[in-house]
Amino acid sequence: MKAIKDSVHGHVRLGDLATDLVDTPAFQRLRHIKQLSTVRLVYPSANHTRFEHSLGVYHLARRAVEGFDLDADTAAHVRAAALLHDVGHGPYGHQTEGIIRRATGRDHDDVAWLLTDADREVCRVLERNGLDPERVAALIDGEGALGPLVSGELDVDRMDYLVRDAHHTGVPYGTVDTGRLVTELRLIGGDGPGESADLVLAEGNVATAESLLVARSLMNAVVYRHHVSRVAGAMLERACERYLDRTGTELGAFRRMADHDLLVELRDRVPALGERIERRDLYKRAVWAGIDEVPAGTVDAGRAEERAAEREIADAVGIDRDAVIVDIPSRPALKESGSAVVVDGVPQRLEDASELVAGLRAAERRRWTLGVYCPAERVEPVADAARDVLGLRAAGRPSA
Amino acid sequence: MKAIKDSVHGHVRLGDLATDLVDTPAFQRLRHIKQLSTVRLVYPSANHTRFEHSLGVYHLARRAVEGFDLDADTAAHVRAAALLHDVGHGPYGHQTEGIIRRATGRDHDDVAWLLTDADREVCRVLERNGLDPERVAALIDGEGALGPLVSGELDVDRMDYLVRDAHHTGVPYGTVDTGRLVTELRLIGGDGPGESADLVLAEGNVATAESLLVARSLMNAVVYRHHVSRVAGAMLERACERYLDRTGTELGAFRRMADHDLLVELRDRVPALGERIERRDLYKRAVWAGIDEVPAGTVDAGRAEERAAEREIADAVGIDRDAVIVDIPSRPALKESGSAVVVDGVPQRLEDASELVAGLRAAERRRWTLGVYCPAERVEPVADAARDVLGLRAAGRPSA
Amino acid sequence: MKAIKDSVHGHVRLGDLATDLVDTPAFQRLRHIKQLSTVRLVYPSANHTRFEHSLGVYHLARRAVEGFDLDADTAAHVRAAALLHDVGHGPYGHQTEGIIRRATGRDHDDVAWLLTDADREVCRVLERNGLDPERVAALIDGEGALGPLVSGELDVDRMDYLVRDAHHTGVPYGTVDTGRLVTELRLIGGDGPGESADLVLAEGNVATAESLLVARSLMNAVVYRHHVSRVAGAMLERACERYLDRTGTELGAFRRMADHDLLVELRDRVPALGERIERRDLYKRAVWAGIDEVPAGTVDAGRAEERAAEREIADAVGIDRDAVIVDIPSRPALKESGSAVVVDGVPQRLEDASELVAGLRAAERRRWTLGVYCPAERVEPVADAARDVLGLRAAGRPSA
Amino acid sequence: MKAIKDSVHGHVRLGDLATDLVDTPAFQRLRHIKQLSTVRLVYPSANHTRFEHSLGVYHLARRAVEGFDLDADTAAHVRAAALLHDVGHGPYGHQTEGIIRRATGRDHDDVAWLLTDADREVCRVLERNGLDPERVAALIDGEGALGPLVSGELDVDRMDYLVRDAHHTGVPYGTVDTGRLVTELRLIGGDGPGESADLVLAEGNVATAESLLVARSLMNAVVYRHHVSRVAGAMLERACERYLDRTGTELGAFRRMADHDLLVELRDRVPALGERIERRDLYKRAVWAGIDEVPAGTVDAGRAEERAAEREIADAVGIDRDAVIVDIPSRPALKESGSAVVVDGVPQRLEDASELVAGLRAAERRRWTLGVYCPAERVEPVADAARDVLGLRAAGRPSA
Repeated sequence: MKAIKDSVHGHVRLGDLATDLVDTPAFQRLRHIKQLSTVRLVYPSANHTRFEHSLGVYHLARRAVEGFDLDADTAAHVRAAALLHDVGHGPYGHQTEGIIRRATGRDHDDVAWLLTDADREVCRVLERNGLDPERVAALIDGEGALGPLVSGELDVDRMDYLVRDAHHTGVPYGTVDTGRLVTELRLIGGDGPGESADLVLAEGNVATAESLLVARSLMNAVVYRHHVSRVAGAMLERACERYLDRTGTELGAFRRMADHDLLVELRDRVPALGERIERRDLYKRAVWAGIDEVPAGTVDAGRAEERAAEREIADAVGIDRDAVIVDIPSRPALKESGSAVVVDGVPQRLEDASELVAGLRAAERRRWTLGVYCPAERVEPVADAARDVLGLRAAGRPSA
Repeated sequence: MKAIKDSVHGHVRLGDLATDLVDTPAFQRLRHIKQLSTVRLVYPSANHTRFEHSLGVYHLARRAVEGFDLDADTAAHVRAAALLHDVGHGPYGHQTEGIIRRATGRDHDDVAWLLTDADREVCRVLERNGLDPERVAALIDGEGALGPLVSGELDVDRMDYLVRDAHHTGVPYGTVDTGRLVTELRLIGGDGPGESADLVLAEGNVATAESLLVARSLMNAVVYRHHVSRVAGAMLERACERYLDRTGTELGAFRRMADHDLLVELRDRVPALGERIERRDLYKRAVWAGIDEVPAGTVDAGRAEERAAEREIADAVGIDRDAVIVDIPSRPALKESGSAVVVDGVPQRLEDASELVAGLRAAERRRWTLGVYCPAERVEPVADAARDVLGLRAAGRPSA
Repeated sequence: MKAIKDSVHGHVRLGDLATDLVDTPAFQRLRHIKQLSTVRLVYPSANHTRFEHSLGVYHLARRAVEGFDLDADTAAHVRAAALLHDVGHGPYGHQTEGIIRRATGRDHDDVAWLLTDADREVCRVLERNGLDPERVAALIDGEGALGPLVSGELDVDRMDYLVRDAHHTGVPYGTVDTGRLVTELRLIGGDGPGESADLVLAEGNVATAESLLVARSLMNAVVYRHHVSRVAGAMLERACERYLDRTGTELGAFRRMADHDLLVELRDRVPALGERIERRDLYKRAVWAGIDEVPAGTVDAGRAEERAAEREIADAVGIDRDAVIVDIPSRPALKESGSAVVVDGVPQRLEDASELVAGLRAAERRRWTLGVYCPAERVEPVADAARDVLGLRAAGRPSA
Repeated sequence: MKAIKDSVHGHVRLGDLATDLVDTPAFQRLRHIKQLSTVRLVYPSANHTRFEHSLGVYHLARRAVEGFDLDADTAAHVRAAALLHDVGHGPYGHQTEGIIRRATGRDHDDVAWLLTDADREVCRVLERNGLDPERVAALIDGEGALGPLVSGELDVDRMDYLVRDAHHTGVPYGTVDTGRLVTELRLIGGDGPGESADLVLAEGNVATAESLLVARSLMNAVVYRHHVSRVAGAMLERACERYLDRTGTELGAFRRMADHDLLVELRDRVPALGERIERRDLYKRAVWAGIDEVPAGTVDAGRAEERAAEREIADAVGIDRDAVIVDIPSRPALKESGSAVVVDGVPQRLEDASELVAGLRAAERRRWTLGVYCPAERVEPVADAARDVLGLRAAGRPSA
């Protein structure tokens, strides 16, 4: 067993398979993908990467699986899936996921193509150790009884990232009790043929499940959706679109870039945006509008409609089209509210067992905000044009 | 300036007045009053005392006050009040507060008698330094514009205890951001004669205020109202009643005891209960009933009705009256929901600004539980008799 | 498996035997013995007890033993010994150890009488679970190949207390890497009949071993031998001697007291000292002399010589004999310097492998200080008389 | 005052000048210079940057200066110097410092050219706020009475990095007590005209100063000089030399690169080494020799002699010259041993006041190791040739 020192879990112990997987180029690349992409522009200590996060997820999965009654082969597949769950990420992680999804139809969780075809070295290591790459890919995609441990409402992914993001930003709200969570997970049912098992938290853990939901909601408000990070993220996404247009870079190659590759490319090839991102010379908010100010159709707009609005606003003001960014987040959701917890002997969905869920959903809705960003010196005309083009009902709120 | 090392805030710096106050017997006595009384029977690391908590509250008050525009004299009174806010506690803190209140009509916050009369040494130190003991006592009681900083919905007391209790129990849920809280506090209004100022959190802090409320609610569920701590606390309160009956101890003397005094006295004078508390040989839950199982009148019962029910149950079962304890908590409340936070330039009560409050209130209501406790070997007959006597609607829930 | 939340190790998992042992009165009593006795008068957060420390030592022993190739029976004995290693402590731990040793010849590590005879309940639990109390007692005494894991230069006792004392005082110097230490421990040799095995740190751990030694030395300087704690400790020891003289309390009963018992007894029966200890109204240093100022014979003085000097000084000044305390620590030692670590394949004693040991020994020698304490108003005459009586070579150093 | 959340110090408060300086491109560039360069290949959480470190150094300087009796103008210069002390670093910080020094004669502390000439924006901000860039540069270079606070044996730079590196690696040994250190610093002497003041630790702080030295020594052993980090660092330095030879890049441009620029350039222009660094496919140790095995002349060899030896070894084995790296560290030193601490009223150098210093120096000497690195498949022939060429006295030690 090899031990790697981790700032969150102390030591992460790797078996032989894990050691070999860590040494593949696909996994080593995760050293160069920051966990929180543009959040570091607000919280400068948040430079942690998907490399150590993946080790942490593996560590928690290993501990959770010790409490289940699994055969060695199944356990090995789960551990491998936990370790590899993020190898499908493009540069800057979630920030480029929309671009990749729109172009390929694939999310970062969809690693089947990667594990079973494209990245032969990961496949070779898995096969050499007697594991089935397709089965690993299915687990990463959340399939089967054990998929939800890797990707689901109660997955070890979110247990690790909440604590890790709290540790590295210095914000205390994400400090869930991972030790308790992994030991209170149960795999129930599934005894009969064809019956599926369910991942639940054992009796007495409504507050434990709520703590996960609350941590997520507070981290959303204070960290993940901080407006400076959103402005930088929207600029990055726009710059990537322009980069792909301009250079004709093949999407597979784009997806395999690391953060440093993309940062250099954007600065050199899309300098109007890339240099600003590198130097944190960011656009400002011209509009910052709550959900009640925004027409329902606009709330549900896709990227194409965003781009059309950007063009219309830029043309109305008479400035370059790259100087206006419309940023409409998806409707608020709290995936964790579907997690299952045993109450009085019966597994219930957290949203049925906890009155907090409705409140947290409402809070998420209140925090939903549409943003329009542009260079500081254009804020006023862009705000006027944007309100008009987007049909906003009242003056945007300039402060959070 | 003298510095005292603190496990939570690093170093607490004391000015001359604070140093003198710390040296009084009334303050030194707080070394012997544990912050969480019987919680240490569940969380064995929770042995911290009201001494270091009081230093922490003083530290946060000092930092908050630096951000206000106060004259030196007012600031000195606020700091003294923060330091002294807990000197009125009886042994085992909140655990004996009900007994003292019923006998004297005084809460631990009501320290006027103490500061202005009974404990001459604290008074002498205050007066020698040019402070008015009555003004300090009024601040501890939450009066005036600055009283709420010491005792109110946004007081530095709860900021310290949430973080300190989390640190010492090892439970992560109380980790609020005290650094942000004390720097975001504002004292607004109060410019005209006769107008009072209000303590509020500055713009952009709805999530900050929510974090305080959420921390409190989760700590309630997992720490403060843990059933083992409640059983031990109820046994302690019962033992104190019996002790006062038996020994005729004067209440002023009782109130001045420290934890070690009371523990020895209860063991020697009320051994049936006192020896059990000392050895953690606790009663078990015979009934554990949610609010919907309990008749409304019973929910609002006072100590006299609890004692009547205890006698009736014990007699029905034919056991000693000290062998049955009925523990009916007060109705759930969330004092923090009244804290004020500025939203779009206007101070609002948190319950109006945050959809979370209703959810948290509902969660507190769900967690409210009536308990009936007795020796393990009597659980069944006591449960039957108690359900009958208390008119419970359904079977008590035996598990948390 | 039952889990107990611990502020240092997260969760400590207890098997059935451990759960039963924890429930015995002898173990529950450890809740009432503070780990650092009078250190809390300097570091007010240091209220942790030998109860949670014992759980922590059990936790580390369990993890260390997992890495050895032991039969289940041996492992169970080691875990039990780790859990029970401190049940032999008197009230205020090491502070009363000298008194008990002088009267009975027994240290706190010598629990044979306790486990095998006096405390029948611990014995019964051990025997009911198939364990041999005498074998457990021998391990606590450091005997055999595995005794040093419980009590020796590389024992899990010091790994836990260094980290725990650092956590609770807030002083950062004790933060050794327990995770690394317990996984790098090896049990080597002992293959042939009659050959004994040795506990060593694996190759590549000279710095790990040094960190333990350095942590101990810095904690000595800043925490364990802080002058205020020493003054209070010396007053406590003196008060105990007077208490035993006055009350004729049987030593077995004295040894079984808890901190709260002793504090109340000393205040009530030896009020001149007991009230001062309770209120932290401590004697001051009249003399504080380095090893080079003290005649060699005096450095090695025993308690009888200390008491004779106290009497002589008190009489010379004409004050009560309890008003002078002479405090001569034992000669400095660094037990950890004998720990074994593998270097280039060969186990070596740390003092041979590390040049740091000599420096640390010299630092310990420099920090050795003889103290004479008395009420503040008597410092000058006592200092003069003490220098004369003790034959000190130069003026005592009044500052640390 | 603007507050930035920091994972180590909680919140760092920035005044107006600091806010403006942080916004300059020269300072924003520090976001892209990792604090520990190649250490992250061993400790994957160690991704922190010189940006947050610089904020931390500013924070500690501000707190230290509050305790001195300085005029506002001097204090402002010290704070600016603390904030800017690292803007002179090249890409990968200390890893490229040797190259830059050999080519320009300038260290990263020598920022005079930068502040007073090259980077006009930092100069403009300083001058606009009434500060003298040359005076700031002199402080960064350690000049004058206050220079040692920024760059010296007791500087706030090392206080921050020891704690920060410990936090982010997860290694506990660097946890010095920054709170105590900054409040115990004193500026003494310097009252008369022409007399210089000295920066010292106040009475009672020998152990505090030792803790700094010990932390540094243990972090050296376990983190800063870990062999994997040294191998990667040596490969990086070699790759940079080759890159500068091949591309003729001007040294000023090289020095202004950020980590991501250099990583991309090395991979694209020196792929034999650059791709290996990016993928952590590192050379192995062929030789790892202690100081007693190495001829004195070789210990003091410069880079030219290293390169000559590399060529000779490579030619002897018949492999590419880039496939052999000779890594001879400078002679061990412990700069901190010259720090001053007051003992019995007189400032002394730590090495005179503490017996530990000699031991730590000896430990540093023991840990000094010469390394020769090459691809895994060439370890044996390279080891033989290297021993011969370098005149090593005994077989290299293959393990640490």
